[in-house]
Amino acid sequence: MDNRPIGVFDSGMGGLTTVREMAKQMPNETVIYFGDTGRVPYGSRSHDTIVKYARQDVAFLRTFDLKAIVIACGTVSSAALSEISAEQDIPVFGVVGPTALRAAEVTRNNRIGLIATKATVGTGAYERVMRHANPMAEIYSLACPLFVPLVENGRTCPGDVVIETVVKDYLTPMKEAGVDTLVLGCTHYPLLTEVIQNFMGPEVTLLDSGAEVVRQVRSRLHASNQEADPDRKGYYRWYVSDSTENFSELASRFLGRPVTEPVSQVAIERY
Amino acid sequence: MDNRPIGVFDSGMGGLTTVREMAKQMPNETVIYFGDTGRVPYGSRSHDTIVKYARQDVAFLRTFDLKAIVIACGTVSSAALSEISAEQDIPVFGVVGPTALRAAEVTRNNRIGLIATKATVGTGAYERVMRHANPMAEIYSLACPLFVPLVENGRTCPGDVVIETVVKDYLTPMKEAGVDTLVLGCTHYPLLTEVIQNFMGPEVTLLDSGAEVVRQVRSRLHASNQEADPDRKGYYRWYVSDSTENFSELASRFLGRPVTEPVSQVAIERY
Repeated sequence: MDNRPIGVFDSGMGGLTTVREMAKQMPNETVIYFGDTGRVPYGSRSHDTIVKYARQDVAFLRTFDLKAIVIACGTVSSAALSEISAEQDIPVFGVVGPTALRAAEVTRNNRIGLIATKATVGTGAYERVMRHANPMAEIYSLACPLFVPLVENGRTCPGDVVIETVVKDYLTPMKEAGVDTLVLGCTHYPLLTEVIQNFMGPEVTLLDSGAEVVRQVRSRLHASNQEADPDRKGYYRWYVSDSTENFSELASRFLGRPVTEPVSQVAIERY
Repeated sequence: MDNRPIGVFDSGMGGLTTVREMAKQMPNETVIYFGDTGRVPYGSRSHDTIVKYARQDVAFLRTFDLKAIVIACGTVSSAALSEISAEQDIPVFGVVGPTALRAAEVTRNNRIGLIATKATVGTGAYERVMRHANPMAEIYSLACPLFVPLVENGRTCPGDVVIETVVKDYLTPMKEAGVDTLVLGCTHYPLLTEVIQNFMGPEVTLLDSGAEVVRQVRSRLHASNQEADPDRKGYYRWYVSDSTENFSELASRFLGRPVTEPVSQVAIERY
């Protein structure tokens, strides 16, 4: 048993979809969340900048006594997991590995689609793991840069001509390629599940990278007997690098519940 | 006569719409452009962060021997012009003043609309100048956060249901309020002129903040006899703070011409 918190970080607010999964799959765990809202988005930064930022994010989280760290950011998981992981003495989980393995496993026709930020697609990290796990897989990767701002502005509902048109414009080639498995490789995309599923059709399996990494964390904590006390309810602490002013409104959209806990600002460039 | 360059900076690429106006209105002038693509967008940052970033942007530009500086960024012009200007021994121009004055002057029914980033609207800087210049003016301000990503992803054409729907959703209250003058208070918005004009109707005057500040710069340089040699053609130098890789493609959209000049990367946090 280990009641120490799990640290989670993301370039901004999107990682809260992973925290939502943690609340669902492991409600006894305590979570310290850091969202780098002052430097979001990472997706368009260079590799060196992404690694530098990720190191600072982890340094801040390590000011708490943690049992594990989850990189909820597709960009950082793709670009910097091995560097970050090698520097830490607690397990560090990224979203890419578990999601890519699951995709390689569940596909029936070996045609897998990946949608993510430009940076995540550009690293080829998902493709490498999928190809390794399933050498027969044909992988179709696509950056969908408009999804993040559309989600952040609440344009996620079926029937909204704006999101439906953008989904159709981006995903028509995926559909035509006949993928039977589609990886949502960016933390924002789970909020588009319904619109994307409607467009792709019910026979296509959508994989949410947040849900997959949480599954992996849970299984590892179980294996090392490090789960939190099952009689206890986990609590949540929120930290961001820019003004805390608008955190709660946007955060509740990603978390799927009102945010009632306090939020603090962190001068992340000092870490 | 003064052939020294004019420094122009913006939080990213949008300020290139101002450079396009400079090329049109003052083709003899040389321009040093800095786009802070590594830290874009400023619009969601706190006041202190915006001032800090703007000081670094100016410090970099002052490594050149300049005759003037143009802040092509609505957010910085709103939040930090007076601070920056007070610290410099050459004239510093912002987009807010000249555009707000022009709006106060050209309105016939004293109903003026302002669309910009959330930060620019939030500072109230445009409103203050407009009210001062025209105490009768009723001002309708609105943040349009989806316009920037839509422009950056090329969704600017009349007939595109995505941009037309978003324009309609944002601007219907403006139209209903009966504004006869609409300030495009963000550097990206001039690329939406056609779609916005179509929606608002031909009787509404759209004011492009880039064009207005260039008019002011030209008139001041003329007054102080500091215009460049009329027989000379100005040249352009581009600097950005993130990777230069994708600069030319996006830049050409804002500049309205292919970008052939070299682009260099600047470690802006060292300034």
